Order: sequence, then structure tokens, then C-alpha cells
Amino acid sequence: MTSSTPYLIRALYEWMTDNSLTPHLLVDTGDVDVQFPKALIKDNKIVLNISPTAIANLIVGNVFIEFSARFSGVEKFISIPVSSVLAIYSRENGSGMTFEKDEILQELFTVTRKMFFAFNKERTSRSFHIVL
Amino acid sequence: MTSSTPYLIRALYEWMTDNSLTPHLLVDTGDVDVQFPKALIKDNKIVLNISPTAIANLIVGNVFIEFSARFSGVEKFISIPVSSVLAIYSRENGSGMTFEKDEILQELFTVTRKMFFAFNKERTSRSFHIVL
Repeated sequence: MTSSTPYLIRALYEWMTDNSLTPHLLVDTGDVDVQFPKALIKDNKIVLNISPTAIANLIVGNVFIEFSARFSGVEKFISIPVSSVLAIYSRENGSGMTFEKDEILQELFTVTRKMFFAFNKERTSRSFHIVL
Repeated sequence: MTSSTPYLIRALYEWMTDNSLTPHLLVDTGDVDVQFPKALIKDNKIVLNISPTAIANLIVGNVFIEFSARFSGVEKFISIPVSSVLAIYSRENGSGMTFEKDEILQELFTVTRKMFFAFNKERTSRSFHIVL
């Protein structure tokens, strides 16, 4: 089964731009083969503004996200594995979605899901998984 | 600001059909102006198989979801307000997303978000909202 993450990134990117919000990606630079300016990387993470006014030629594929961006006036071709995206969120109000896959977060969602079941047991017997 | 729900429904529908999963909608029938067979409604909710093999002419708009479906051999035009959709999930493994807006669930997500902040405080100072 493929990851639902690229589908959700495309959806939220579209929702944000339709609502005049500025989409940002939080990216783990560990697996990204791009020389970003060091000043922009903090704790192995970088925040990239991917709004149509900030970058060009954006393609959100199912495996890679690709676009052209300028850093200090120099145009760079950026290619990021979808699996390195930790979140997409809007600059204006922080709304969006996280895709962190670490165990602590997984555990939190499992707890939430169990609480959800407990509260909703009588309303539906279906099981739901929060997409991570 | 418009709802992100229709964007997420389109994304997960596409992800499921790309993965040969069968998308189902859980719908609150309270605000739906369609005469569904009574036997299919339970506790004011109905589960609708919206896979391409089960229905025709699906349009997931930003306000309404519309399609044609057959009930007991009779074709019906179905129009459902997006706001009545409680969840989209796959029949095969239950993966998907809930859009319930009741206070208990909101509270659960708030708790999760706070725990997320606590665990991730040192990694990022950004605030995230889980899209409901």
C-alpha cells in the first residue's frame, strides 16, 4: 500500500492556496540531497515556503516533491522525498497536518483512537485509523 | 475560510482507489434531503460505498457530494452536504479519516495536540492544528 501523505499534501496545498494562506513545509533534511544554506537549517530541519509566489514549477509527486526556488538570488532545483516531509501548515494560522512518524506521536494517536472508540462505541462499531 | 474537509475527502478517495481499496462514506442523514431505504439507516447514520464500481458520476464538490446510485434496482441521484460526512474509510482495513465535529472529539484532539507540543517543544516551536 502506498503512503497517503502525498495525497494529503496536495489536498492541503490546494486548500491553503484557495484560501489565500501561505503553505509551508517542515522538512527533515537528513535524507534530502540538496545543499540548503546552513543558516536556514535548525536541528536538521528546514521550513520551506512553497506558495506560488515564493517558488516555481512545483510538482508534488507520490515519491518526490520538486520545485525551483531562489536562495540568496541563486536559483536552485529542489527535490525532496515525500517521506522527509514532517508537516504542511499555513504561515497565517498554523492550520495543516503533521506527518511525523516517530513512536511517541504514533502512541499518542493510538491513545486518541482508543479514547475515540470508547466514546463512540454505541454510535458506530467501525474501526478508524488516523492516517499518519 | 472554507472547510478543508472536501479537499481531504478527494485526496483520500484518490489514495484508496489508487490502492484498490473500497472507499466508504459515513454520513449523518439528519441534514440530507434524500430518501434512503430505512433499513440502511442506523442511529441517523448511513454507510455509502462510493467506489467507482458501486456508483456513477461522482462529483466531490466543496459544498456537496453528488453521485448516482442504485437502491433495490432503482437509480437515485444522491446529493449530500459535505458537512454531513462524518468519515471516509476503506472497507478493507478501515484506514481513512474522521470529520466528526462533536465536542468530545475536539477535546481529544486538543489533548493530543498539547501532548504533541510537550514532546516536541525542543524540536520545533511552530504550532500545529489538526484539521477537523
